[in-house]
Amino acid sequence: MTTASPSPAAPDPQRGAAVKAADRAHVFHSWSAQELIDPLAVAGAEGSWFWDYDGNRYLDFASQLVNTNIGHQHPKVVAAIQEQAGRLATLAPGFAVDVRSEAARLIAELTPGDLDKVFFTNGGAEAVENAVRMARLHTGRHKVLSAYRSYHGATAAAINLTGDPRRWPSDTGAAGVVHFWGPCAYRSAFHAADEAQECERALAHLADVIAFEGPQTIAAIVLETVVGTAGVLIPPAGYLAGVRELCDRYGIVFVLDEVMAGFGRTGRWFAADHWGVVPDLLTFAKGVNSGYVPLGGVAISEKIAATFATRAYPGGLTYSGHPLACAAAVATITAMREERIVEHAAEIGERVLGPGLREIAERHPCVGEVRGLGVFWALDLVKDKETREPLVPYNAAGADNAPMADFAAACKRRGLWPFVNMNRTHVVPPCTITEAEAKEGLAVLDEALSAADAHCR
Amino acid sequence: MTTASPSPAAPDPQRGAAVKAADRAHVFHSWSAQELIDPLAVAGAEGSWFWDYDGNRYLDFASQLVNTNIGHQHPKVVAAIQEQAGRLATLAPGFAVDVRSEAARLIAELTPGDLDKVFFTNGGAEAVENAVRMARLHTGRHKVLSAYRSYHGATAAAINLTGDPRRWPSDTGAAGVVHFWGPCAYRSAFHAADEAQECERALAHLADVIAFEGPQTIAAIVLETVVGTAGVLIPPAGYLAGVRELCDRYGIVFVLDEVMAGFGRTGRWFAADHWGVVPDLLTFAKGVNSGYVPLGGVAISEKIAATFATRAYPGGLTYSGHPLACAAAVATITAMREERIVEHAAEIGERVLGPGLREIAERHPCVGEVRGLGVFWALDLVKDKETREPLVPYNAAGADNAPMADFAAACKRRGLWPFVNMNRTHVVPPCTITEAEAKEGLAVLDEALSAADAHCR
Ligand SMILES: Cc1ncc(COP(=O)(O)O)c(C=O)c1O
Ligand SMILES: Cc1ncc(COP(=O)(O)O)c(C=O)c1O
Repeated sequence: MTTASPSPAAPDPQRGAAVKAADRAHVFHSWSAQELIDPLAVAGAEGSWFWDYDGNRYLDFASQLVNTNIGHQHPKVVAAIQEQAGRLATLAPGFAVDVRSEAARLIAELTPGDLDKVFFTNGGAEAVENAVRMARLHTGRHKVLSAYRSYHGATAAAINLTGDPRRWPSDTGAAGVVHFWGPCAYRSAFHAADEAQECERALAHLADVIAFEGPQTIAAIVLETVVGTAGVLIPPAGYLAGVRELCDRYGIVFVLDEVMAGFGRTGRWFAADHWGVVPDLLTFAKGVNSGYVPLGGVAISEKIAATFATRAYPGGLTYSGHPLACAAAVATITAMREERIVEHAAEIGERVLGPGLREIAERHPCVGEVRGLGVFWALDLVKDKETREPLVPYNAAGADNAPMADFAAACKRRGLWPFVNMNRTHVVPPCTITEAEAKEGLAVLDEALSAADAHCR
Repeated sequence: MTTASPSPAAPDPQRGAAVKAADRAHVFHSWSAQELIDPLAVAGAEGSWFWDYDGNRYLDFASQLVNTNIGHQHPKVVAAIQEQAGRLATLAPGFAVDVRSEAARLIAELTPGDLDKVFFTNGGAEAVENAVRMARLHTGRHKVLSAYRSYHGATAAAINLTGDPRRWPSDTGAAGVVHFWGPCAYRSAFHAADEAQECERALAHLADVIAFEGPQTIAAIVLETVVGTAGVLIPPAGYLAGVRELCDRYGIVFVLDEVMAGFGRTGRWFAADHWGVVPDLLTFAKGVNSGYVPLGGVAISEKIAATFATRAYPGGLTYSGHPLACAAAVATITAMREERIVEHAAEIGERVLGPGLREIAERHPCVGEVRGLGVFWALDLVKDKETREPLVPYNAAGADNAPMADFAAACKRRGLWPFVNMNRTHVVPPCTITEAEAKEGLAVLDEALSAADAHCR
């Protein structure tokens, strides 16, 4: 890995204040009460780091929104974007164009099984929207099953599939979505004693839901291969194969959402590779080009592509297969191969992050569980290791959420940018993070968790 | 305007065949039966032109998907993308960043009235999705009214709002959307004798729909300021003001969709400027940066922004306010100002396209109506000028659609890339098109329409 910790330009607090002021005047921010936020003005970024205008650097343990798998400003990807911009920045989806063809070919090569056709979108939500449309038209059925512990995006179909509380305000309650419980041994919905039992019971539960919803009404089951924002939940051995079997039995389309888990995050190109499972549709975004240019998509099995061989596929978007985005994907995938970045992510996870986090867990009463793979880890924080009561209640806000807010502030003060969701912090740095950087980040986490310990029983 | 007709690189049919073959093997195309299409492999583009690998050049009378308002490869926009890529390609939406602040400030400056806050998305559909979410939460109501003659995008909420047949296969029939008839004097739903009567009756119809749906159930009315894909329908004087009044009377949020009509297309920055109407929310995409990098958004009125001042706005996407996309927007808007591109679009429309198309209409029995503004025109093709029977039936396919397919082929053979939808061809070149180019294109249209004349009664 080549990302030595970079030196930011000279501080320029005045410029920072101007950027912030214009932001506050004119930028409407996502997922926020506009007057209750105080966005950090960022001046630059490189590798695993970014910095503000006041001379503060942050080690990015969140990879922005878990998308900069290749780190910031990778020179090969930057060069490819610059080259493509000079050659052909945009082109309508109806044409054939070299970088779009090549991006699709590379993605088809990497995706498991017969997922050999790629429909491109701008991001993850649109990918999920189109996967659901394909499944509904392929099966002629309407219902879609998804997990309570999930996030699938914020357009109408995607937010209805989502299980986390971000769905609540937008829930139209009529989209044919049924939520079920996926496996989560640490917080079992099935009172299971261990992973094997959790797997067995989660599959029995899903089979029951299918039976009572009516198999012939169900178009698709949509699952994050490894649940991301809702907790980095690694499926127990056998679970995904079991879902595959249920889908096959009832002619249900199996959609794996790898928007967050794909392209190296778990130490494999796709998380599905860990379990040798092949879905019928696989959604991706984020890591495909590290978000340098907005891109997402659906990788499509032969069977489903065949449905739309002579019958029109009724979906699209102006920027499907955008040349600049595809050029960035080609460069990203190529660089990840050449520099063995996926292998590096696996190794850093196994040799540094996993052991380091488990050590931290032993020292801190507030760390209930460590779970993860590659550069995709969660610490599940608790008030009490015995009862596993979460450190903050589900969807806590304000004072109720103070323990997590304090923890995040403690990290930031020490130059670490953490990913925080509910009672968890996720350790999701770029796949390119060096051993030294990972250890530096773990040391900060260790200190910051002491503040959280104070909230334990 | 500086776009002299460019010379493509030397033809390379072998390379073209390879690009096409990889496309056919791996790219899943929007709105298409995958085996019934034959995408043209495009090698390059500049200004109003693009070219293939066989030495054919095309004058782009479609601006791709009506998005390259500034033409292809504008040097200032290309340079801005290259510069930003080298500086900071991506950053999460939660931060403040110079180009995002500046893009929002410029857009707020251009949008009418008090639309001073901008929520950024990747494209048009996501913009519409978020506008609808804002309206529903602002009003606490659920229903949304939109026009039968409309296109609003292909994600779940957007496709349900859409009136054109692309909605049919995805219609979930339960999204609280009610379609009504907008004004279209040439094909009046109200048996109106003229524009003034059409306006009056269309407003009465909308008032009736509101009354019978229940005003207190209606969150928003969503309208394209000038209806785009569904026909370039210019609202009669007074219509938009009348809708504004109805919205005010009942506390309904007025959303103008300017994804296609905005950023110069009509010869004004926004189409709403022609009628001095200020919506509560305005959606944009395409022209904001000519699609060089995927970008869309919602411009938000003070009143609606205030709703989310201390209450969280529950929507977002990974690439909201993407730095590369915002840098392209800043450069595009700046270049459009410096080079007076919007004024040029107005002038080309008034002096060249309008008169030229009306002349063509006189010569051809198949041209029923010419309508438009700026670089946003439609020829409504008919079997019979008296009865106005469309040249092909609504949503015709295969043999039924042959007259339009033949017309499109005739244009392409002559080096003109036309925009064709149903029984219409739209003349929607870049805002930067030169007078000579416009005349060259009109001459081709003139010839190609002779083929269509053969299908008249
Ligand atoms: C698993 C998963 N699916 C879908 C999405 C939505 O992607 P986007 O934000 O690009 O729309 C996300 C975003 O975090 C995600 O993690
Ligand atoms: C008026 C209008 N709204 C929305 C959209 C959808 O935009 P996108 O294709 O970027 O999702 C379009 C696309 O043509 C449009 O013309």
